[in-house]
Amino acid sequence: MNNKEHRFDVKVYYEDTDSLGMVYYANYLRYLERARTELVAAEGKDIQVWNAEGFNFAVFEVRIRYLKPARLGDTLTVVTTSVGGSTFRRKLQQNIERDGEVVTEAKVDLVCLDARMELTEFPAGIFD
Amino acid sequence: MNNKEHRFDVKVYYEDTDSLGMVYYANYLRYLERARTELVAAEGKDIQVWNAEGFNFAVFEVRIRYLKPARLGDTLTVVTTSVGGSTFRRKLQQNIERDGEVVTEAKVDLVCLDARMELTEFPAGIFD
Amino acid sequence: MNNKEHRFDVKVYYEDTDSLGMVYYANYLRYLERARTELVAAEGKDIQVWNAEGFNFAVFEVRIRYLKPARLGDTLTVVTTSVGGSTFRRKLQQNIERDGEVVTEAKVDLVCLDARMELTEFPAGIFD
Amino acid sequence: MNNKEHRFDVKVYYEDTDSLGMVYYANYLRYLERARTELVAAEGKDIQVWNAEGFNFAVFEVRIRYLKPARLGDTLTVVTTSVGGSTFRRKLQQNIERDGEVVTEAKVDLVCLDARMELTEFPAGIFD
Repeated sequence: MNNKEHRFDVKVYYEDTDSLGMVYYANYLRYLERARTELVAAEGKDIQVWNAEGFNFAVFEVRIRYLKPARLGDTLTVVTTSVGGSTFRRKLQQNIERDGEVVTEAKVDLVCLDARMELTEFPAGIFD
Repeated sequence: MNNKEHRFDVKVYYEDTDSLGMVYYANYLRYLERARTELVAAEGKDIQVWNAEGFNFAVFEVRIRYLKPARLGDTLTVVTTSVGGSTFRRKLQQNIERDGEVVTEAKVDLVCLDARMELTEFPAGIFD
Repeated sequence: MNNKEHRFDVKVYYEDTDSLGMVYYANYLRYLERARTELVAAEGKDIQVWNAEGFNFAVFEVRIRYLKPARLGDTLTVVTTSVGGSTFRRKLQQNIERDGEVVTEAKVDLVCLDARMELTEFPAGIFD
Repeated sequence: MNNKEHRFDVKVYYEDTDSLGMVYYANYLRYLERARTELVAAEGKDIQVWNAEGFNFAVFEVRIRYLKPARLGDTLTVVTTSVGGSTFRRKLQQNIERDGEVVTEAKVDLVCLDARMELTEFPAGIFD
C-alpha cells in the first residue's frame, strides 16, 4: 500500500438495515471485506485469481467499535491503511466514514492460507 | 417425500429484518433453503455429503408471493410438499406459516447438477 | 420510467457467494432491490424520503429464473423495465446480465403501502 | 445471568458460507446476536418487547478471533457469559464451539439506548 490510504465507497440499502432502523452490526464487516477485495485488485490482481493460485486471505482478528449509526441511503467510505504486521500477519486499520465523520473504526488482522488452508507468507505487495 | 409434508421452524432475528420493520423479502428464500436442507437430511443423507458425492441441488425457478409481513421475534414454519416434476426437475410447494396463517407461498423448481455443474438426474428418494 | 430501461451495476463479493462457489440464490433478490432503490432515486426522490412521507414500496410477487451461475468477481448489470400494471400494482421485468448474457430473469410485482402499511396508490412517476 | 453461562445452538446453512467453503467471517456475528436475543428472552422478556418499551441493546465494540473454520452442516454452540461491566456497559464473552472445541472467541461490549437512541442504564437483570 506504500503508506497510502485506500478509499472505497459503499451505499446503504434495505438489506443492510434492521428493524431498529440502522445498519445491522455484522454488515459493516461486509463493507470492510468489499474494500479489502478492491484493495487487492488495485494492487494488481483480482482476489479470485489469487484464490485460484492458492493464496487465500483470511481474517484472524477484528476489533471494531460502533461510534455512530449508519442509515438507509447513507453513502459511506471505507478508509483502509496498513498499520504494520509481518509477512505472516497483515494489520490494517479500516475506518468507515460518512461526510468525513468516523462511523465505525476497526483493526483487522489478516493471515494468508495456501490451497490446503495452511498458514503461508503473504505475497509481496499485498496488504503491506 | 411420500406425499407427506415436511415442517421446519425458523425464528426471525434482527439480521432478517430491515428498516421497514419487517423481514427483508430476500430472506424468506433463506428460510426456504434451510427447510430444503433439513428435508434432504431427513431423507437420509446430509446435503454436504451429497455435494461431496457430486450431487448439487440447485434452484431453477422460484415464484413467491408475499401475503403478510413477518416481524422480529416471530416463529415461522416452512411447510414443504412435493407437487410433481420428473427425475430431472423437482417441483416443491413451500409455504411459510405463522400460527397456521400463510405468510408467504412459493413454488420452487429444482435441478440436480453433477460435480462439473452439468444437469443430471436426481437420486431416487430426494425431493420426490 | 417512460419506456426506458434502467441499468445498474453490481459486483459479486465473497458475502454473495456460497460453498458451491456461486452466488447464493437469495442474493440475486438483493441485487434487484438495490436496482429498484436506485431507480426510485433516479425518478427524483430518495426512497428513504418516500418512506418518511408514508410511501413504502413492497414486493408482492417475484418470479425468478436462474439461468447461469454468477461467481466471485463478476460484474453484473440489473436491467429494469416497466411491463405494465396499474396505479395499485407496478410490474417490472428485472434481468441480470453479465457481458450481455442473461444470468437471471425476474418478474417483480410491487405494491405501495402507506404509513399504516395499508395498500394505497403509487405516486405518479414511480415505477411506471 | 447470575454467573451462569448461556448456551445456544446454531446450524450452518449455505447462506452462511462463502466460495472459500467456510462460514463468511461476518456471519459469526449473526450467530452471536441470535444468542444474545435468546439470552434476553431467557431473562424474562422478548427483545421486541424491550424495544417497544424504549430499551434498545446496541453493540459498542466487538473483538473477535477466528481460530478454526466452520463449514456447511456444522452444528455450533454459542456460549455466552457475563464478564463484568456496569449499569451503562455490559461486557460479554461469547465463544462459538463445535464439539467442545472453540471455533471463534469474542468479547462484546453492549450499551443500552432509549427510544431517542440516547444512552441509558440497562434494566436490572439484563446481560449482567
